Amino acid sequence: MANYKSIVAYDGTEFQGFQRQAAGLRTVQGVLELALREVGWQGSSLKAAGRTDAGVHARGQVIAYELTWRHDPEQLTQALNANLPSDVAVSETEVARDDFHPRFSAQSRRYSYRVLLQPIRDPLRERYAWRIWPEPELERLAAAAVCLIGSHDFVAFGRAPIPGGHTVRQVSQAEWRKEVEKLTFEIEANAFLYNMVRRLVAGMLEVGAGKVDLGDFIALLDNPDQRWEGRIAAPQGLCLEAVNYQEEPPS
Amino acid sequence: MANYKSIVAYDGTEFQGFQRQAAGLRTVQGVLELALREVGWQGSSLKAAGRTDAGVHARGQVIAYELTWRHDPEQLTQALNANLPSDVAVSETEVARDDFHPRFSAQSRRYSYRVLLQPIRDPLRERYAWRIWPEPELERLAAAAVCLIGSHDFVAFGRAPIPGGHTVRQVSQAEWRKEVEKLTFEIEANAFLYNMVRRLVAGMLEVGAGKVDLGDFIALLDNPDQRWEGRIAAPQGLCLEAVNYQEEPPS
Repeated sequence: MANYKSIVAYDGTEFQGFQRQAAGLRTVQGVLELALREVGWQGSSLKAAGRTDAGVHARGQVIAYELTWRHDPEQLTQALNANLPSDVAVSETEVARDDFHPRFSAQSRRYSYRVLLQPIRDPLRERYAWRIWPEPELERLAAAAVCLIGSHDFVAFGRAPIPGGHTVRQVSQAEWRKEVEKLTFEIEANAFLYNMVRRLVAGMLEVGAGKVDLGDFIALLDNPDQRWEGRIAAPQGLCLEAVNYQEEPPS
Repeated sequence: MANYKSIVAYDGTEFQGFQRQAAGLRTVQGVLELALREVGWQGSSLKAAGRTDAGVHARGQVIAYELTWRHDPEQLTQALNANLPSDVAVSETEVARDDFHPRFSAQSRRYSYRVLLQPIRDPLRERYAWRIWPEPELERLAAAAVCLIGSHDFVAFGRAPIPGGHTVRQVSQAEWRKEVEKLTFEIEANAFLYNMVRRLVAGMLEVGAGKVDLGDFIALLDNPDQRWEGRIAAPQGLCLEAVNYQEEPPS
């Protein structure tokens, strides 16, 4: 029996989020656990790096599970994929240290948020992006993003995973990139509050549209007495890109 | 009453093709006609440029329909989109000449075919691409594509829309483009035979993989006694990008 680590990608559209829920609700954890059972897994609950919401995608979700497997990890990837539906796939599997936990061992997480800039609906692109119009001003978006970098109390933009938990997070990267008819926001932090990225994105887009002053947006940081009261960015623009771990020492 | 022309985009995944069929089968034509009824259309059948197959996408399908509409065409686009499901959208509407027919007036059509080059399934990209592995050789793909340009009898790669119909088509552009983990084939011709692009793509990929000789592939062109007996490329890689019409003379 070993502790395995797998990287998982999924299209979140048809899922009620990552976390297993009541019977009848289709969740990513639920279909992953079904596939694990097919290869002999007998655990009660897999461990995961992050609990993405309904409709949120992932390219780099990380899970761990204890399993007796006689072949190499690459064959385990293939066996799991053979048992997974087309909207979930394992991209990589390896044996992890016994004490590896995808959430508690993580050093940082990286999310992307995609915005489609078009006045009219686009069925071929709105599955993985949030469409807004008119275009926000890129300079204002960039200015708002820069202010997020560093250590801040983000309580105004989300809630802690545990009631009353710590709400300070360390953001190492936050930037907007513009391409044709498209904006991508990338953010990396040691961890995130619940719904934090989608609230920050909505807030920055309001700043970019000139509807909220940059100063008012910044005043929400490190301010336990205020809340972002505006809308929350749509789930389908968000993607958990990667979870980073410290290099494991050779065992 | 005027003859309206609309450009339509759709995600073909959840449709049994473009053309209306027996009740109970979800088709693009079916949902478009339902939306047209909502704005007062009383015709029996809309006209379309091409009948894409089940699972095939479109960014530039063209339809025409006769309608009495008191507002401007832009508002018609909006009214139709308000009545269409999320996987179909009208991107543009204009008043056309009375004798405009999206199929018979078309000068040329352009299709793209997207190939994903990856050994492992990818839920976030396989909706709009066909995954193959290992990578085919780009030089061989390019050589095969060049041979398609010009006027050829493509009977070995498809059948005419009408039994016994003409099978010569004039290809003006055919090329492969390589990006990271991705290949895109673009082809433009005056018209296409049924399933022609998907059979050509499958054939070129076999040439690229070294499984079929370039000479044997070329020998299928202008050869009424042979048929491409290999597989047909998956529908989700194909997209009807645009239909081109002669500039209309000022009326």
